[in-house]
Amino acid sequence: MPFQPSSMKIISVDDHLIERPNLWLDRLPTKDHEAAPRVVNAGRLDFWVYEDRAEVYGPGLGAAAGRPVEEWSMQGIGMAEIAPGCIDPGERIKDMDIDGVWAALNFPTFSRFAGTRFLEFRDKELALRCVRAYNDFVFDEWCAAAPDRFIPFCILPLWDPKLAAAEVERVADRGARSVGFPDGVETLGLPSWHTGYWDPVFAAAAACDLPLSSHIGTGQRPSPVSKDAPGRRQSGSQVCPANSALNGLGSFVMVTDLTFSHVFHKFPNLKIALSEGGIGWISYIKERMDYVWERQKHWAGVADVRPSSLFDKHFWGCFIDEEVGLRERHAIGINNIMLEIDYPHSDTTWPHTQKRVSELMVNVPDDEAHRIVELNARDLYRFPG
Amino acid sequence: MPFQPSSMKIISVDDHLIERPNLWLDRLPTKDHEAAPRVVNAGRLDFWVYEDRAEVYGPGLGAAAGRPVEEWSMQGIGMAEIAPGCIDPGERIKDMDIDGVWAALNFPTFSRFAGTRFLEFRDKELALRCVRAYNDFVFDEWCAAAPDRFIPFCILPLWDPKLAAAEVERVADRGARSVGFPDGVETLGLPSWHTGYWDPVFAAAAACDLPLSSHIGTGQRPSPVSKDAPGRRQSGSQVCPANSALNGLGSFVMVTDLTFSHVFHKFPNLKIALSEGGIGWISYIKERMDYVWERQKHWAGVADVRPSSLFDKHFWGCFIDEEVGLRERHAIGINNIMLEIDYPHSDTTWPHTQKRVSELMVNVPDDEAHRIVELNARDLYRFPG
Repeated sequence: MPFQPSSMKIISVDDHLIERPNLWLDRLPTKDHEAAPRVVNAGRLDFWVYEDRAEVYGPGLGAAAGRPVEEWSMQGIGMAEIAPGCIDPGERIKDMDIDGVWAALNFPTFSRFAGTRFLEFRDKELALRCVRAYNDFVFDEWCAAAPDRFIPFCILPLWDPKLAAAEVERVADRGARSVGFPDGVETLGLPSWHTGYWDPVFAAAAACDLPLSSHIGTGQRPSPVSKDAPGRRQSGSQVCPANSALNGLGSFVMVTDLTFSHVFHKFPNLKIALSEGGIGWISYIKERMDYVWERQKHWAGVADVRPSSLFDKHFWGCFIDEEVGLRERHAIGINNIMLEIDYPHSDTTWPHTQKRVSELMVNVPDDEAHRIVELNARDLYRFPG
Repeated sequence: MPFQPSSMKIISVDDHLIERPNLWLDRLPTKDHEAAPRVVNAGRLDFWVYEDRAEVYGPGLGAAAGRPVEEWSMQGIGMAEIAPGCIDPGERIKDMDIDGVWAALNFPTFSRFAGTRFLEFRDKELALRCVRAYNDFVFDEWCAAAPDRFIPFCILPLWDPKLAAAEVERVADRGARSVGFPDGVETLGLPSWHTGYWDPVFAAAAACDLPLSSHIGTGQRPSPVSKDAPGRRQSGSQVCPANSALNGLGSFVMVTDLTFSHVFHKFPNLKIALSEGGIGWISYIKERMDYVWERQKHWAGVADVRPSSLFDKHFWGCFIDEEVGLRERHAIGINNIMLEIDYPHSDTTWPHTQKRVSELMVNVPDDEAHRIVELNARDLYRFPG
């Protein structure tokens, strides 16, 4: 039976919202307004200003949806060029309706996908109030606009695992369905997950049944791509086609490093979504981890559980538009794959998602397609509750 | 038709030899004997001594073949524990016969897989004589022992692209069938391949129809695995199960970075074997590169050739024991896959290669299996000439 979009509701587990300009000013006491993030106009462009730093409000490829690829650039864009659906949840619902997407989990932009922006703050008490204000915005504004269509995703104060664990519990009480956790921590200057440092966060997430959504890029890993690669100089950052092609590396490394750690043995209920990591590489790394484990478990003292079994229990792969990964879906795990639209970023299938998903699923039986486009997300994120 | 080992001869495109202790003393003038690599005994272990440095002669996992996995360790091993087939080509042929392997390309050990050891030498004139002596050893001793069973593989003086190009031409005249080139160069402190720096080497290799064999690890890329990962402290190096599972990363990055460079447009005859890079990830990265290229070629100014087409023309994937990659063989390219045994390293299938290859090929038609286990290597390496 071919893909029947009418019989299933597409859920995107990875879209992006841009924080509205007055989010923090409206939610923090006046004493914080001097240092809290707020938006200042400077001609064509607007900038976030926070503490003594500033950054453009509209990132180039970060608001690409709807613009022709020939016009894309790494240049920041002005408020008028940003699709209203990036900022306004009511407008977003309209864009989701155009695309035939029923529900979505959204990552923040200025805050970064796991809230790592607030690691930079010198005033960590202010930073904590900012994190909580963002999370309250998610409940009170973004998700409140359409509770059956937005999966509540929250960020954590990552500079303090005990505070982070307390925020996990607070947002769980408020109805969160996932929290952000970086796909790398040592690259953020924080202790590795092989130490016990992160155990309070993992314990709280497991106890509250809140899966971690670990979006690529959140660990701010240095790109292995040459500094001379085409596009890298133009972008003034790591972003370039070669680096984008290697987007999944963060997930690739996270899976391997965590699977050979104590974490899943200590927290058997911990679940991790590999947001935007792609899926076509997963059956390879499962096979490869098992191969190495068979040969090296003795000398290295790694645990007596087959790595691929740990993957099946703890990881969910997320993809936008891949044929290889769907061919390999049984080796990856039919219950471990979720769809993402990545609105409004450059990889998005918006506004052609229905058409593209129908093409991708042409050789996938309906019950499997249903798991991939909807049911796995509903089960993992307990949505709706 | 099931796999018919009797109808085809297995060629391994990635095995390893250990340089015999007197290789350089026998081949270099007396004035060089003070600083050239030679072996000194120190009780149970022997050490290479060169200039003012020293390193154990028998690496731990580097001579694992034939020993039970329970006994493997990262500890260096003594001369008596090293299988004679590591050092003596006549003994190697016996080990290949036990394994049912007809021919093999061998990388050196002390010299490192692309000869990068000699980058360390302070005396670069001595280093050049050492590189040439190794290459002459390959022709006069190793391959001379069984010319129809050893594919001549040579190393280059990588600190000087003009000298390296001259050595490409010299070894091509002597009958070489491949030269080593690192899977990363900036990590060796050398200019990137996006600059014109390496063009003389690429030009010479293309003109001589000598494919580059780029073995994983040769770029000495820093491992993205946590410094606390199990096994990493025991090994005192990057080596650990998580890092071994990520072995293919160097090839993964090299493919992406080179494909988005000028190199293949400037050198349309350049060919690169991704030695020990694995193959199960290749169909994923081909699809992913095309996806990004469609969207980002405009802003980033990358060339107007589809990345997957460049892969098909320029890269050969090499695998030891993978089922995922063989399922994906048509998307990878049935003419772009070669088998390796990796004798005597820890990933090797020796001495069970015939049995394991028969299992792996159970669903692969005979003509495709023949290309993968023998004919692709014969074509790429023009072997025998």
